[in-house]
Amino acid sequence: MSLEFVHDALPGRVVFARGARRRLVDEVTRLGLRRLMVITSERQLDLARALTDGLQDRLAVSFTRVLPHVPDSVAREARTLAEEHSVDGLLSVGGGSITGTAKIVALTSGLPIVSVPTTYAGSELTPVWGMTTGGRKETGRSPMVLPKVVIYDPQLVEGLPRKVATSSALNAMAHCIEALWMSTATPVTTLMALEGVRVLRQGLDELVTDLTPAAFENLVLGAYLAGASFAVAGSGLHHKICHALGGAFDLPHAETHAVVLPHALDFNIVAMRADSATRLTSALGGTDAVESLRDLYRRVGAPVSLAGLGLTAEQLRVAIQVVIEKLPIENPRPVDADAVRAILTAAYRPKP
Amino acid sequence: MSLEFVHDALPGRVVFARGARRRLVDEVTRLGLRRLMVITSERQLDLARALTDGLQDRLAVSFTRVLPHVPDSVAREARTLAEEHSVDGLLSVGGGSITGTAKIVALTSGLPIVSVPTTYAGSELTPVWGMTTGGRKETGRSPMVLPKVVIYDPQLVEGLPRKVATSSALNAMAHCIEALWMSTATPVTTLMALEGVRVLRQGLDELVTDLTPAAFENLVLGAYLAGASFAVAGSGLHHKICHALGGAFDLPHAETHAVVLPHALDFNIVAMRADSATRLTSALGGTDAVESLRDLYRRVGAPVSLAGLGLTAEQLRVAIQVVIEKLPIENPRPVDADAVRAILTAAYRPKP
Repeated sequence: MSLEFVHDALPGRVVFARGARRRLVDEVTRLGLRRLMVITSERQLDLARALTDGLQDRLAVSFTRVLPHVPDSVAREARTLAEEHSVDGLLSVGGGSITGTAKIVALTSGLPIVSVPTTYAGSELTPVWGMTTGGRKETGRSPMVLPKVVIYDPQLVEGLPRKVATSSALNAMAHCIEALWMSTATPVTTLMALEGVRVLRQGLDELVTDLTPAAFENLVLGAYLAGASFAVAGSGLHHKICHALGGAFDLPHAETHAVVLPHALDFNIVAMRADSATRLTSALGGTDAVESLRDLYRRVGAPVSLAGLGLTAEQLRVAIQVVIEKLPIENPRPVDADAVRAILTAAYRPKP
Repeated sequence: MSLEFVHDALPGRVVFARGARRRLVDEVTRLGLRRLMVITSERQLDLARALTDGLQDRLAVSFTRVLPHVPDSVAREARTLAEEHSVDGLLSVGGGSITGTAKIVALTSGLPIVSVPTTYAGSELTPVWGMTTGGRKETGRSPMVLPKVVIYDPQLVEGLPRKVATSSALNAMAHCIEALWMSTATPVTTLMALEGVRVLRQGLDELVTDLTPAAFENLVLGAYLAGASFAVAGSGLHHKICHALGGAFDLPHAETHAVVLPHALDFNIVAMRADSATRLTSALGGTDAVESLRDLYRRVGAPVSLAGLGLTAEQLRVAIQVVIEKLPIENPRPVDADAVRAILTAAYRPKP
């Protein structure tokens, strides 16, 4: 079969360095921004304050009323605030929900985003936005929402509780692995995704065995590579399942991705391009990709069941139905109702 | 040492497929272009005609008076022609000099470029332009000159004479290897550069041993990865030496890069990051990077001496002086006058 692909490269500046505080001043200056709206959570307000210490004269207003999946009421409030304060830029400090809120403001205002991620979510590298109206999540792609600059500072994730860090890193791992099996994968997204898997695996192992600064570098680098590959290759079966679960039952985002990933991989591994599967196995550091991933979960104590995340048996039945209604789902291995049922049932309460 | 880098990702669409003719119609339609100026060489006019067969009603004019290094007289003529014919887009079909001419027109007009490369030059992925006025080459970077879409078709390079193909592929290899040792290298440029080395080496070997379509796929993919890594990581010692030689003595571009590369690598290998050097060695398929590269040159019959390209002993002395005048040159291993003399003397007539 001859090689054929389309790679739509996205623009964007990534600064990867310890000491985000200093780099932030440089980048804001470089963009010529003078009236920033800081978007963060109440919990991370102190961190945001410390980070923006050198920008006091350029902060117009803060917005901290963020919620997962960006409810339309939050979107409205944030957009109004940005307008009322005539801000000329958005500075997001936080994880996926915070980046998502900044994107929704950028979508209608055209304001540039400076993003300082504090988890491994990866949303800061994608042109994907999402907003929830009346319980229904609408998503789209727009170059307007792509941050102008992303500042990755491994020091900012050092304080994440280990359980949160583990699930967030496995959410990034899911971006990488799904990017590998998409029909829209390109040689460049595949390179980034495989290296992402390798450094995330290494960082996750270091989290439990050898907690040096290098562990956080590996994890943040992995999150960057995950976001960058995912941003171009897009999302498929794994993400469709997780979004259905997250949307309908308000399950925790990263944990849901972590739980579903081994089952999505188990289903798709036989249909992956042989060279991608081989290289994935080697990036996971074993001889069998699914087994290596499961071993990693055991070593780092990752969540392994939807029941453990609080999903009830009745909710599982509804979730299976919600995903089945989304069929057909483009996937390297054809997915039918039975396949959806098998994947979700296995993820609900895996065999020991 | 902690990881620190800035990656300025460039936008751009790459379509990699056999059958550029059909894809070209799609891409021109996608961009909404209706009055194209085709930029190509006399030699490639027939190829350009065949390629644009489906675009007859959207061709306004052709320009074929291209010359290496884009003399200002050529730039003026091409710019005037574009204006006179009110073109709304530029279609370049050819190698580096042709892409370079399209860039010079785009630089002042803002016209979008659709690029169909027919060599492994890689210029189509960089925002670098160059123009020669009175024997002096001026270069710069501008997002204006970055093609909106690049169409890579492995069938288009099948007709390149083997000697031309070999040097052009080694020119791409030089982009990759220099991208590895630049201080501006990032984890992403390094991944692309290493994979570029691997597939270029494979394609070059296939050129002489197993001439299947896969050989050209590997070489074109390598050229893409080379251009993409080089576009972000920039150029250093190797390119400075080659530009000095090319500018002063009109030596053939790709051949000059091919000849100089093993000597630049021999000089820099000891100063490269250990992991990059190890991975480069493995991408070259051996246990010693410089020796593996030299073996490859022997297998494919690549040019190995500046004397063989027609440089005289007197010109060598001048060339050494020209490069010395460019010092200091940023490089992983400090470069002084003696180093320049040693590299160029070795490249002039290598020891057997």
